[in-house]
Amino acid sequence: MDYIKVSICQINSIIGDLKNNIKKIIDFANNCKDSDFIVFPELSISGYPPEDLLFKKHFIEDCKKTLKLNLNKFPSDSFILIGHPDFNKNDEVVNRLSIILNGKIISQYDKINLPNYSVFDEKRYFKEGDSIKSIWWDKINFSFNICEDIWVEDNLITASKKLFLSDIIFNISASPYHINKHEERIKIFSKYTKENNCILVYCNLVGGQDELIFDGNSFVLKGDEIIAKGKSFEEDIVDVYINVKELFKEYEYSEFEIEKFNKIKKTAAIKVNKPYKMNKPKKNICNVNIHSEEEEIFEALKLAVKDYVHKNGFKKVIVGISGGIDSALTATICTLSLGKENVVGISMPSHFTSSETKSDARILAENLGIEFYEIPIANIFQTYLNQLEPYFKDLPFNVAEENLQARIRGNILMAFSNKFGYLVITTGNKSELTVGYATIYGDMAGGFALLKDVPKMLVYKIAKFINKKYKKEIIPNSTIERAPSAELRPNQKDEDSLVPYPLLDKFLKLFIEEDKDLNYFDFLNEKDLKKLIRLVYINEYKRRQAPVGPKITKRAFGKDRRYPITNHYNEIYYR
Amino acid sequence: MDYIKVSICQINSIIGDLKNNIKKIIDFANNCKDSDFIVFPELSISGYPPEDLLFKKHFIEDCKKTLKLNLNKFPSDSFILIGHPDFNKNDEVVNRLSIILNGKIISQYDKINLPNYSVFDEKRYFKEGDSIKSIWWDKINFSFNICEDIWVEDNLITASKKLFLSDIIFNISASPYHINKHEERIKIFSKYTKENNCILVYCNLVGGQDELIFDGNSFVLKGDEIIAKGKSFEEDIVDVYINVKELFKEYEYSEFEIEKFNKIKKTAAIKVNKPYKMNKPKKNICNVNIHSEEEEIFEALKLAVKDYVHKNGFKKVIVGISGGIDSALTATICTLSLGKENVVGISMPSHFTSSETKSDARILAENLGIEFYEIPIANIFQTYLNQLEPYFKDLPFNVAEENLQARIRGNILMAFSNKFGYLVITTGNKSELTVGYATIYGDMAGGFALLKDVPKMLVYKIAKFINKKYKKEIIPNSTIERAPSAELRPNQKDEDSLVPYPLLDKFLKLFIEEDKDLNYFDFLNEKDLKKLIRLVYINEYKRRQAPVGPKITKRAFGKDRRYPITNHYNEIYYR
Repeated sequence: MDYIKVSICQINSIIGDLKNNIKKIIDFANNCKDSDFIVFPELSISGYPPEDLLFKKHFIEDCKKTLKLNLNKFPSDSFILIGHPDFNKNDEVVNRLSIILNGKIISQYDKINLPNYSVFDEKRYFKEGDSIKSIWWDKINFSFNICEDIWVEDNLITASKKLFLSDIIFNISASPYHINKHEERIKIFSKYTKENNCILVYCNLVGGQDELIFDGNSFVLKGDEIIAKGKSFEEDIVDVYINVKELFKEYEYSEFEIEKFNKIKKTAAIKVNKPYKMNKPKKNICNVNIHSEEEEIFEALKLAVKDYVHKNGFKKVIVGISGGIDSALTATICTLSLGKENVVGISMPSHFTSSETKSDARILAENLGIEFYEIPIANIFQTYLNQLEPYFKDLPFNVAEENLQARIRGNILMAFSNKFGYLVITTGNKSELTVGYATIYGDMAGGFALLKDVPKMLVYKIAKFINKKYKKEIIPNSTIERAPSAELRPNQKDEDSLVPYPLLDKFLKLFIEEDKDLNYFDFLNEKDLKKLIRLVYINEYKRRQAPVGPKITKRAFGKDRRYPITNHYNEIYYR
Repeated sequence: MDYIKVSICQINSIIGDLKNNIKKIIDFANNCKDSDFIVFPELSISGYPPEDLLFKKHFIEDCKKTLKLNLNKFPSDSFILIGHPDFNKNDEVVNRLSIILNGKIISQYDKINLPNYSVFDEKRYFKEGDSIKSIWWDKINFSFNICEDIWVEDNLITASKKLFLSDIIFNISASPYHINKHEERIKIFSKYTKENNCILVYCNLVGGQDELIFDGNSFVLKGDEIIAKGKSFEEDIVDVYINVKELFKEYEYSEFEIEKFNKIKKTAAIKVNKPYKMNKPKKNICNVNIHSEEEEIFEALKLAVKDYVHKNGFKKVIVGISGGIDSALTATICTLSLGKENVVGISMPSHFTSSETKSDARILAENLGIEFYEIPIANIFQTYLNQLEPYFKDLPFNVAEENLQARIRGNILMAFSNKFGYLVITTGNKSELTVGYATIYGDMAGGFALLKDVPKMLVYKIAKFINKKYKKEIIPNSTIERAPSAELRPNQKDEDSLVPYPLLDKFLKLFIEEDKDLNYFDFLNEKDLKKLIRLVYINEYKRRQAPVGPKITKRAFGKDRRYPITNHYNEIYYR
């Protein structure tokens, strides 16, 4: 026998949808009947991350049952690798990988390295495993582990190779996306596979789950060579043909030798017989469907919004289209992701809305071919002002009246949402949210904040990318070129209140994403720096009430960044 | 020398307010000049919990500097025990206790047991310590540790006694409140102090911090006897006089013996000389300022709102007063906590508001003596309806129009907030939030949700308690007795949409707080149970955008309970 076939099934599972998840797993597996190995992602039965559902004993029992009742539905004579939550023998919850062969679980591995940083809370839920596992099949040795286990310095690729001389190491993951994450993975893991001269089969989840996007991008590394790769941001089956002859050791492992391994503390090994399935290899395929960073982010956002909308039972979305760049990009991505028949745009002009922005809103909607309404807010605004006049008297127009306009718009969008069942997609970007340049219960009102983690300058880049990709002016150039304005008072320009966006974005990267100290902010004068830092801290209460939105950077607002609202710390005040 | 004096300083520190926190610490310490031991809570320099501020290297440096620059400002010849974040020798962040004597840090202990459940994320931030510490002073041995270290089964009270024969064990804590937490602490710790025949000096933080309330309630246990106790929900200095003669060992520890301890892995001990300070003991005081569960919760909520408002720089609050029980209790607690001159009430009646509720709102405001306005929403509502008519046409009145009314009210409150700088306190209770019986951006709009963790039946209990305590009908009896209604459509009663509140509260305790499986819900028929469980899950998106509110139960909504929004799990659907 020369070749074995491995099928990596990068599926999109849904949290808690146990019956449909297992159905999908079985369907995928049965499309891979001639494979020796069929591999599914981390926690694919429950979806990832199930969060506090894991505290429910009956939830774990239901996951167990889901697997148990379906063991005999997998193809015969294939090793099935699958992740699911389970109880260990002390009744503690573990993040487990089970290997199924011919209707039986033949080995189980519990994740040892539990991430508890960034968006991860795994030490909240799981007991870490206590042993490394390995299987000998004929002359091939393979080991298996879960996600974080190969990210750490002292990792299980190296350990498996050293301990068992593993030829093939399987890692099942639910590894969330950020920009260039795939390249990061290859860089880190290939260092270990090269050093240890082994094969890594990496199976990653795909799909959007609240703030997280799983990018798929499964792959097989042989040394530092990528010999197969799955699609980005799509479900996929990656079939890989591995020449095992060149891996064969000189001899088969004897029972005696395996016993020896099992005496080493923290390891467990078994020997398994099953026929080889594959004789005629095909060419391995590297699916490369992404060609630039902008395209990567664009595809990530399309997947994020599609999954949030559909998995939450919505069909249509509604977007407040102002004529500005953020709402234009939001409506465009929604349309390209969900279809024009599923996007409704509403423009809600006020006295302060310029004729250019008003017209840009209409043109965008026409370009997208979406349902579009224009609902002026002047009458409603005036009625509020009349009602408030006895109390506000002749106090000057200020943020109260500015925010009121944004909140009227929020109410109109929510009224459409409640009346017709549309999900409101909010349009604010990361730069605004960093400094609180957004109205809570106004433009922040909605179910999903698509650009929440996209800084303003990147908003422009992606807008330009889309026009270029589709070879037409979908997003009006006048929208791209006009100076950004909230248009809540006469002649308002964002950059009058804030610093220029290129500087703001540089600030946010260093301050929010990288926790840099004051020495890194020479490009801002002290007054602006003071102002920005203060704005970041005092606006925590707004971010806390913001809708979720997809993480695309190394540190997103949301569970990736946990800050006190009540907080007197300020880098500058302390100096 | 017969007696030593210990002063437990249960202070209210503010997150990140390093300069003021250390100033307070020094002021308190200098009020205890004749004490041998002056003890401050866990992380008192930074406040607790600093959350992701701990990822900033310069934040830790600032905390270090704050302590270092002030070492010589403490009274001489007293042991000062104080908690603060720091770097260990490998530059990892630790949760540290330092002991200061005469301007020098003489010993440091790093927290070993890091809680990572419930509201705690300490494994996200801290490296655990690796050794138990002890000091011999003359013939007395004392050990010291931090919070969680004495909650676990295998704890440092027992370990310190066994290893060092410690007479006195100091624990500094930031232990958040829930109902009966003090009794729980006494029960658990006194088991260990009794078994080990030792003294526990327990110093807990006091104050409100976002979702958390620290209740103070510091104490000293001698065996299973409480020999001194600090106030609940107030700053306090608890002076304790301990007869050390009865603790004295037969001999002083020799250098040789101490060296022996230091050779035991994971322990470290030193010997220290300082004069005894105290000769004439006074009577130890047990401050008991709480006499019932209702009073405990009432005091907890008063502290929570006061600290949230003041620490965030507000003076006045505004409450939408509907005439119903939730807003009545909210406005009452705010008034009793902040003073009547700092509370503004607004009643915003609609066509659906009954004359009784309208009148109850006014009577309550009169009883409280607060500023009060009545702003009808009918005109604004009608203007919205006119503007939406071309789109809504003759579709029936539904949740869109119901929510719109609540959102108009939210906008009016926020307009007052923006115009006058009042903080909006929301009025929803835990029962409503459990099933999503609240309008997002409507009655959920505001900065602090005072009753967020108070189930409906408990709302009634506390309302009745207040009337009884103040011996007058502050909250109108008609408000207490009327069937609850959102009054967003004609003849609406909460219990027509939901189940009766006693059943709902029973459900929420078992389902939300205790993760019980379906066998525990016999008191509901299947249809209602199905409905409630579905409502819990589908309303996660509302809770995610809710303002913070104080935790008073074992499991509150907020960081204590982390659920996916996108979630298809349902106990019942799977059966």
